Amino acid sequence: MGEVSAPPAISFVARSGTGKTTLVTALISELKTRGYRVGAIKHDAHRFEIDHPGKDSYRFTASGADSMLISSDSKLAFVRQHRQPPDIGELIERYFKDVDLILVEGFKRVGLPKIEVYRQERNSSLLCRGEHHDPDLLAVATDIELQIDVPQFDLNNPAAIVDFLLISCEL
Amino acid sequence: MGEVSAPPAISFVARSGTGKTTLVTALISELKTRGYRVGAIKHDAHRFEIDHPGKDSYRFTASGADSMLISSDSKLAFVRQHRQPPDIGELIERYFKDVDLILVEGFKRVGLPKIEVYRQERNSSLLCRGEHHDPDLLAVATDIELQIDVPQFDLNNPAAIVDFLLISCEL
Repeated sequence: MGEVSAPPAISFVARSGTGKTTLVTALISELKTRGYRVGAIKHDAHRFEIDHPGKDSYRFTASGADSMLISSDSKLAFVRQHRQPPDIGELIERYFKDVDLILVEGFKRVGLPKIEVYRQERNSSLLCRGEHHDPDLLAVATDIELQIDVPQFDLNNPAAIVDFLLISCEL
Repeated sequence: MGEVSAPPAISFVARSGTGKTTLVTALISELKTRGYRVGAIKHDAHRFEIDHPGKDSYRFTASGADSMLISSDSKLAFVRQHRQPPDIGELIERYFKDVDLILVEGFKRVGLPKIEVYRQERNSSLLCRGEHHDPDLLAVATDIELQIDVPQFDLNNPAAIVDFLLISCEL
């Protein structure tokens, strides 16, 4: 499945400081252990920095290159300036056709199936089950049992969440 | 021109330490001043480092993501692991369709039109006019006048080199 069409993508949402990236990182590791090709997409609300001043790749971008790519035997890196960020569908279509599934972080309103990350000491309510009932909520990864209408998983058990992801994505 | 097909690409070659990246960087700035959309591609013979430990994007890649993309309002960065580096034609086709021209560095045998960078105190002979006569050599950027069968330009005059590039690329 997913050889011709775009690979499935799951979005992870949480209030700031909940440990979303830590969970996504653990899921990537678990998926890699099981042999899947994994993509990760993050929306950054700020002006992220990548690359290191002084490196040739950095100098190209700093001198104004609209698009810069550096390639070695083991990887490539590509930096592109844009005025309007491409939408998530375009990013998946253009950059992620050769992975089995994609974990997405930081895109708030995007229409992808979602897993919300919840941590008792950090959150008083769920983002997807407050004033706004998000129909795309697939499950919650939480450190405390919740009264909720979707499946919930132990935040600290990435293997169980991966089991669920794979079933959800029909992989 | 170049709206449908791939944009023109020029490869810059030089012996190590000649200041190739400095020249390419100056050409990018000059092209940007004139309003062109510019791409840059560099082949790195070593294992380049990009991104910063601790950053979320870095954590995704470090945890094993085959492809990682981070996007903000002003730019995106994409890092992809590969076993076999894509060839230059594939890179241009996939990543650079929306620029006017591309400056390429570090791909030695690639069949693109070439400009060799020459600096008297660094070089005893030209790479493209030694034992091997490279038919793709378009011009030389040099700090001393050479006896040579192709046009030569002052290494420190990026505006003149850009004039030549634009004519060569029919832009």
